[in-house]
Amino acid sequence: MPDYTPTDRTRVQHVPQRGHYDRETVHTILDEGMVCHAGFVREGQPFVIPMNYARDGERLLLHGGHDSRLVQTLAGGVPICLTVTLMDGLVIGRTPAQYSMNYRSVVVVGAASEVTDPAAKRTALAAFTDHFFPGRGREVETMDQRIIDETAVLEVPLREVSAKIRRGPISDGKPEAKSSGIWTGEIPLRLTALPPVSAPSCPSDLAPPEDMANPRRPGLIRAGE
Amino acid sequence: MPDYTPTDRTRVQHVPQRGHYDRETVHTILDEGMVCHAGFVREGQPFVIPMNYARDGERLLLHGGHDSRLVQTLAGGVPICLTVTLMDGLVIGRTPAQYSMNYRSVVVVGAASEVTDPAAKRTALAAFTDHFFPGRGREVETMDQRIIDETAVLEVPLREVSAKIRRGPISDGKPEAKSSGIWTGEIPLRLTALPPVSAPSCPSDLAPPEDMANPRRPGLIRAGE
Repeated sequence: MPDYTPTDRTRVQHVPQRGHYDRETVHTILDEGMVCHAGFVREGQPFVIPMNYARDGERLLLHGGHDSRLVQTLAGGVPICLTVTLMDGLVIGRTPAQYSMNYRSVVVVGAASEVTDPAAKRTALAAFTDHFFPGRGREVETMDQRIIDETAVLEVPLREVSAKIRRGPISDGKPEAKSSGIWTGEIPLRLTALPPVSAPSCPSDLAPPEDMANPRRPGLIRAGE
Repeated sequence: MPDYTPTDRTRVQHVPQRGHYDRETVHTILDEGMVCHAGFVREGQPFVIPMNYARDGERLLLHGGHDSRLVQTLAGGVPICLTVTLMDGLVIGRTPAQYSMNYRSVVVVGAASEVTDPAAKRTALAAFTDHFFPGRGREVETMDQRIIDETAVLEVPLREVSAKIRRGPISDGKPEAKSSGIWTGEIPLRLTALPPVSAPSCPSDLAPPEDMANPRRPGLIRAGE
């Protein structure tokens, strides 16, 4: 598939070599993330709210209660920005000004619309669930229609999209810096899944299913790995 | 100190019991985070960009190059929103509609101004460095004035602020759900620091300092913990 076309709103300007517009890079970042930060404007004031999301092909899915003011605002088709950021590491410079982070982020500019067709909504909710736990989307088949009716599902097409990536140590070409005796490098960061904790409402002899005890999800390592 | 006063822009509306306005809760979340998502508006379009930040008393600090369009925009005193989100766990429901996340977030509404006084700027950069690595702020003393001049430092006062926290398993009071045989609970998530990786420019006999090999920072665990 062709790359996303950078626009004035999505082109990475400050350090252009950190910008990426190919679908594979964008999709990989979006598939690892679990939370996006949704930006919208109310009376000239920007608001940024964390929301779960899922990627399904060339759209991002959001969901929430029909009674949520946030969901109502987004469903109205106002201009929004959805940003996903994965923290990959702390970059330790030789001086504080060089401290930085390694990260991968995606910015999506556009507008949301509501998925209202009942079958399309069920498909979207299955995709949503699969994003968190691959394979669990099949559970949507057993969901009460009433619960589906209460849930609002929004979709945002992936049209104006860019990724930004910072990798590696500081760029420091000065020979005298190398002989300074000051250590520099990276402390890699990973998101770790600890062993599952059963809810008090679970019978004491009910163990977590295997795919909960060992979640296999891009971007998530298990404790001890 | 008195609580932050919730306003129409910061009061948590949808699930009010998740809203927190006391300084200790807000400060604890801000001190654990390393990245905020900065929202601002350009020609009616919201943009959300990840940025490192630090809390220093009752202000958040941001920094960047003077030549960054983002920094120039924020320094202009436009309305902004800074949001920090810590992911604490995946909440596994008995049905997909109950899947959720445990998280702690803080929303700060306001405007940034630039710190220009040289001594105040040095103090701010030391606070910035200490936020990532407690104790490393002392390194700022040795920083070249030229590098400090090239770095823009912005501050945002903590005035309109709220925290939002979701904790625990799903709320599920129905007796038939308990006997359904379907497991429900939480998969706790933690940010893990892996062993430091030396930059290629480091002499091979230069080991990472102890506080890099064992970073002690709220919200960060070490591999194997």
